[in-house]
Amino acid sequence: MRSAQVTIKDIAKSLGISPSTVSRALKDHPDISYETKEAVKKLAKELNYNPNLVALSLRHSKTYTIGVIIPEIVHYFFSSVISGIEDATHDRGYNVMICQSNELYEREVSSTKALLAARVEGLLVSMSKTTIQYDHFLNLRDNKIPIVFFDRHCPIIDTDRVLLDDFEGAYKATKHLIKKGCKRIAHLFAPQHLAIGKNRLEGYLKALEDNNIKPDNELIIKCDIHEKALEIVPRLLSLPNAPDGIFAVNDNTAAGAMIAVKQKGLKVPKDVAIVGFSNSLISTVTDPPITSVEQKGYEMGKKAAEMLIRRLDAKELYPAETEILKSELIIRNSSQKR
Amino acid sequence: MRSAQVTIKDIAKSLGISPSTVSRALKDHPDISYETKEAVKKLAKELNYNPNLVALSLRHSKTYTIGVIIPEIVHYFFSSVISGIEDATHDRGYNVMICQSNELYEREVSSTKALLAARVEGLLVSMSKTTIQYDHFLNLRDNKIPIVFFDRHCPIIDTDRVLLDDFEGAYKATKHLIKKGCKRIAHLFAPQHLAIGKNRLEGYLKALEDNNIKPDNELIIKCDIHEKALEIVPRLLSLPNAPDGIFAVNDNTAAGAMIAVKQKGLKVPKDVAIVGFSNSLISTVTDPPITSVEQKGYEMGKKAAEMLIRRLDAKELYPAETEILKSELIIRNSSQKR
Repeated sequence: MRSAQVTIKDIAKSLGISPSTVSRALKDHPDISYETKEAVKKLAKELNYNPNLVALSLRHSKTYTIGVIIPEIVHYFFSSVISGIEDATHDRGYNVMICQSNELYEREVSSTKALLAARVEGLLVSMSKTTIQYDHFLNLRDNKIPIVFFDRHCPIIDTDRVLLDDFEGAYKATKHLIKKGCKRIAHLFAPQHLAIGKNRLEGYLKALEDNNIKPDNELIIKCDIHEKALEIVPRLLSLPNAPDGIFAVNDNTAAGAMIAVKQKGLKVPKDVAIVGFSNSLISTVTDPPITSVEQKGYEMGKKAAEMLIRRLDAKELYPAETEILKSELIIRNSSQKR
Repeated sequence: MRSAQVTIKDIAKSLGISPSTVSRALKDHPDISYETKEAVKKLAKELNYNPNLVALSLRHSKTYTIGVIIPEIVHYFFSSVISGIEDATHDRGYNVMICQSNELYEREVSSTKALLAARVEGLLVSMSKTTIQYDHFLNLRDNKIPIVFFDRHCPIIDTDRVLLDDFEGAYKATKHLIKKGCKRIAHLFAPQHLAIGKNRLEGYLKALEDNNIKPDNELIIKCDIHEKALEIVPRLLSLPNAPDGIFAVNDNTAAGAMIAVKQKGLKVPKDVAIVGFSNSLISTVTDPPITSVEQKGYEMGKKAAEMLIRRLDAKELYPAETEILKSELIIRNSSQKR
């Protein structure tokens, strides 16, 4: 047998294992057992297998580890993102390490440093609410560590990103409430330095405008957590111009709004229709279940991980890419006013 | 000034920073800025500060990173655990890296290896449902990497652990349903090779026994996820001896059971009372909200992290410790039959 003809597939076939196992065994991948590595190396030597040595040494610094920084693990959306990331990476032999910034800039910075120290090959990041300085990300770029942002991105760094068309999602949600007969639609919004907060508010305002409804500042409130909705919505409902519809920036906040509406003795959707954003498990277990904008967490995580791996595998530089996922309104009973 | 008298506190005071910052600057901790490190080192030299060099070199291999392996991030319980872990570790300068096993043995093994390769100082682990081999944990022990199990532990390794009194929690939940007048209480249980599944089932059975209720095998079903409850509970409700109470092993399953009961045209709690386990956000947003056993996720994470740090800081070995947290039944309307 001529040695140049021996391939990884030949070795795999002889040993009854997969080509990717052979490939990883030859690269001393930590997932492959000592026994398998020895068997593969022994046979490779016997068959005089001659790998592409340049390619092999180039890859030698690979740690097969990807770092992820997310704001809060407790959100269904982010756990869906993680499932998508893991499904896209696991089959290719990558491990995923997750750090939570807990919406704190300082933790985001120290997580970035810790993941670098752990020798991750690249990062997937959704920015914390409180991050308004970006040196830690610029530092990654300067160190040639690829980074892909998802959902919440850093506006000043030109890098790969996967986003949702939040404007469209909010527009659809608000238009739906108008079509169902709502005249006074409140919006519970997220911080405006985050693109998701800004774009959802703008989508809401545009839908009002297109339907000749004048926005009422009393009905547009910064409130993006469950507990705060329990506090703020009762006050909204006591206004002379109380809302007959509420569009909340996420499902946890929408679920809080629903509890507050019911506690006031009002009915959902008859008196107050409610729409959330995320399409999480929460939106299906409330009574009535909540109409919500599907945020495509799983798809977003999968896409972001694929973009990162493509970047890691690339032999040369190429321009940063932005992928915008289409939102979708999932209609349930919380908004069926008519 | 005699050099032996200069302490970290003196340096901190002179520079207007905290003693822990000085200490970390002297150890070249990655969280401390270059400028601060230089300032601290310069002053330490000027003052002839003389640290305990042995202690310093012993600690020199510290990475200030702790690894966490959890089954599924999507569960409220595990995200509460992570909050507890982070609150206990962050102030001490540790970073936390999380891997998800996704209830898969193989991912648990590769996560363990990846975290070791990332040079974590110790691990906090809640075992996956499918893990029945333990070499990866034994390997950690052999490498002197401390490990603390929480919630789901490895039965054959003598190491630190923090558990909940699951038996007691299940006993209280079942007894509560009996007191509310339930005669035929179903239990939706988790896999029996997990101590949590076994202990909760045993607590349920003991409560029946203590109240002279004969267990009915038709009402004791393996079902621990939301989607499966939607499938199985309708069948349970069609039995001649249909249940008038359901105790589910977690809240997501209990919420699924509630949806199924309502879809059957029955009322909760009047026709079927429901109790869950976890006391998660889900249990508060359903209508009626779900009575649930508080699983103490935050406390468990905090405790486990503290045990690990104590182990990392210890100058000598001491016997493995087990801490059992007290469960608590949080009563809401889903069980108020009478």
